[in-house]
Amino acid sequence: MKTLLLIMDGVGDRGKQTSLGRARTPHLDKLAKTGITGMLHPLGRGVVPGSDTSHLALFGYDPKVYYKGRGAFEAFGAGLELKDKDVAFRTNLGTVDENLVVTDRRAGRDPLGLDELYAALDDMEFGDVMIKVKHTVEHRGALLLSGPGLSASVTNTDPHEVGVKLLRSEAIAPEGEKTASILNQFTEQASAILAEHPANKMRQEKGKVSANVVLSRGAGIYFKPESFEEKYRLKGVCIAGGALYKGAARYVGMDVPDVPGATGTTSTDLGAKTAAVERAVRDHDFVFVHVKGTDAAGHDGNADLKCQMVERIDKELVANIAKLFEIVIVTGDHSTPPSAKRHTADPVPILFWHDDVRPDAAARLCESECMTGGLGHIVGLDIMNLVLDYVGKAKMFGE
Amino acid sequence: MKTLLLIMDGVGDRGKQTSLGRARTPHLDKLAKTGITGMLHPLGRGVVPGSDTSHLALFGYDPKVYYKGRGAFEAFGAGLELKDKDVAFRTNLGTVDENLVVTDRRAGRDPLGLDELYAALDDMEFGDVMIKVKHTVEHRGALLLSGPGLSASVTNTDPHEVGVKLLRSEAIAPEGEKTASILNQFTEQASAILAEHPANKMRQEKGKVSANVVLSRGAGIYFKPESFEEKYRLKGVCIAGGALYKGAARYVGMDVPDVPGATGTTSTDLGAKTAAVERAVRDHDFVFVHVKGTDAAGHDGNADLKCQMVERIDKELVANIAKLFEIVIVTGDHSTPPSAKRHTADPVPILFWHDDVRPDAAARLCESECMTGGLGHIVGLDIMNLVLDYVGKAKMFGE
Repeated sequence: MKTLLLIMDGVGDRGKQTSLGRARTPHLDKLAKTGITGMLHPLGRGVVPGSDTSHLALFGYDPKVYYKGRGAFEAFGAGLELKDKDVAFRTNLGTVDENLVVTDRRAGRDPLGLDELYAALDDMEFGDVMIKVKHTVEHRGALLLSGPGLSASVTNTDPHEVGVKLLRSEAIAPEGEKTASILNQFTEQASAILAEHPANKMRQEKGKVSANVVLSRGAGIYFKPESFEEKYRLKGVCIAGGALYKGAARYVGMDVPDVPGATGTTSTDLGAKTAAVERAVRDHDFVFVHVKGTDAAGHDGNADLKCQMVERIDKELVANIAKLFEIVIVTGDHSTPPSAKRHTADPVPILFWHDDVRPDAAARLCESECMTGGLGHIVGLDIMNLVLDYVGKAKMFGE
Repeated sequence: MKTLLLIMDGVGDRGKQTSLGRARTPHLDKLAKTGITGMLHPLGRGVVPGSDTSHLALFGYDPKVYYKGRGAFEAFGAGLELKDKDVAFRTNLGTVDENLVVTDRRAGRDPLGLDELYAALDDMEFGDVMIKVKHTVEHRGALLLSGPGLSASVTNTDPHEVGVKLLRSEAIAPEGEKTASILNQFTEQASAILAEHPANKMRQEKGKVSANVVLSRGAGIYFKPESFEEKYRLKGVCIAGGALYKGAARYVGMDVPDVPGATGTTSTDLGAKTAAVERAVRDHDFVFVHVKGTDAAGHDGNADLKCQMVERIDKELVANIAKLFEIVIVTGDHSTPPSAKRHTADPVPILFWHDDVRPDAAARLCESECMTGGLGHIVGLDIMNLVLDYVGKAKMFGE
């Protein structure tokens, strides 16, 4: 039995007119009419979910147990090899002035030369700690510290605002001291390398701001969890563009094929994702498909674009792939209402389709219809239990 | 104030057409129209309930705390007297060949002579451990080990399939060694007794397979819990046919009168149960009535029979007994959809009737109407709290 988990990132909205409510979605409607619906609180009522913690919960891994900071997932998603107790950060290449005051956290959002600049920082060594750096998308990257005695108990160097000086990392517990010290040494040496690098000279010649500082945040330590396949006896695969989602999937041991054209933006190629799903479903039981564009549009406050993304997902993805599965689950990892431009704790409509569920009155996957759906209000950790019960792999408690 | 808890075992179904949805149930409908309804997850969302654990939860005893294996409940149900830290097993009389390979786990499902054979194994002694054996229904029975130093940390002798050799019990923790050794000695001596017993000679003469082995499973150790009456200040009574349910009720200290004709099968005498309820309600506050047939029909995949059982329960039981109570609760201990033929984690419709509840829109006790009922989604442990609140015996938290 094949299961599809389709996540429209941040798809929930606030207000009377929501993206899901406004969008024309004939294929999702058809599933909703014969499926059962409800409202999903990914991390529980009133908790504003991060994308990483939410995905752990959706996969059935309690983030209270497994979440060790976003850096580890980002590093995974970037394709870095993490060993037990390595520590990773999310990075931006940004711009500082001569006093180390941040003038642009994203180096003008211009990617020119960033590949070369990130590459120039890779493979450093500080004592017994090895450093790996990898460019992901736009100004973003991942920074991995590998060696003994590391800890995620350190503060960020990224001040998260402009006009403020680059921060020195500090230990927030004694075990973080080595890591903070190495992060500071790395940041300093990186600045020296970046300042002199030809790619930055080229940027200056073309009138771009210099990408002359590494801003690090989200320290995460890696512990190897029980794999998705060990836990559920289901072979899982992830079809996504965004590094974070691929990282979360790889963290639980799903296969994560490369999907050219899946960019994790609103211009992602959903046809490429469709083709990837068609390939992946052949030798996997559980296919996780992630589309980021809905969330991006929500953060930008662009309700029309968000609505269009939902319509594209229905027409270009759901229309083609739903028929390949016996179980289809469609929901989001949190709400990102265009009216709020940020993640909110509002629950997300969820649809669970299988030809033997108890259909409810909801005829559409949207806030107003699913809020009285037959599933009621559920949490992220409930989803895999539902799947296991329907695929016949749930364990009975008692006899 | 008198409370009725009527459990239709495994009554929940999947799909558009459920047994409760299809059945003609005028008396339940009447209660549903003026009562409040909801969906019951006996052990919590996504947990597939066993019958034993579910009944503990329905009675307000958390199975995570109280569940110590099914053998103890089965032994109780069979009427054996258990002392603190006795260990009990569920047994089959089965058939093995000369190499001790199991050829039939149920001795041809023929009860001829099984009463005598079970009786022949009763009252053995191995050192300081006394053995009691009791026949229950069909090929099934209970085996009780009573004495010091016993443990449920032992494996079954029942291989749970044919064509496989009778297993030797083994300790799964050091404290199980004595119990495993005694179970093996008993099994060996039982085989010798059974082989030579006149009842088996009679079975052979009539062309039946020999019932020549005791297959034991489900070791359970007994700890005496706080009684139902101590816990709730309510005098409870159980009207049931199946040994397991009587055992669970006796475990929590309910009275368990014998109900001749209540068989725990689809041919049970519901008139006899009605009469038993009419007697029991006189001197009890809380009457638990269990009907097994709905679950049996679900396991057999027989949707029509399951629907008929619901109709019989409505006509022969609810019609006569509901009026004797101020509070009437009707639900199941789990779902056993005929489409799945096994227990599932799907929640079960529940009806709570009292003349002062807040009636909801549900006009029937069925999946599609109760999924939006006024109780919402509740768990087994919620039920007794609801009862205590309505009978005025709930304790306030705070002042």
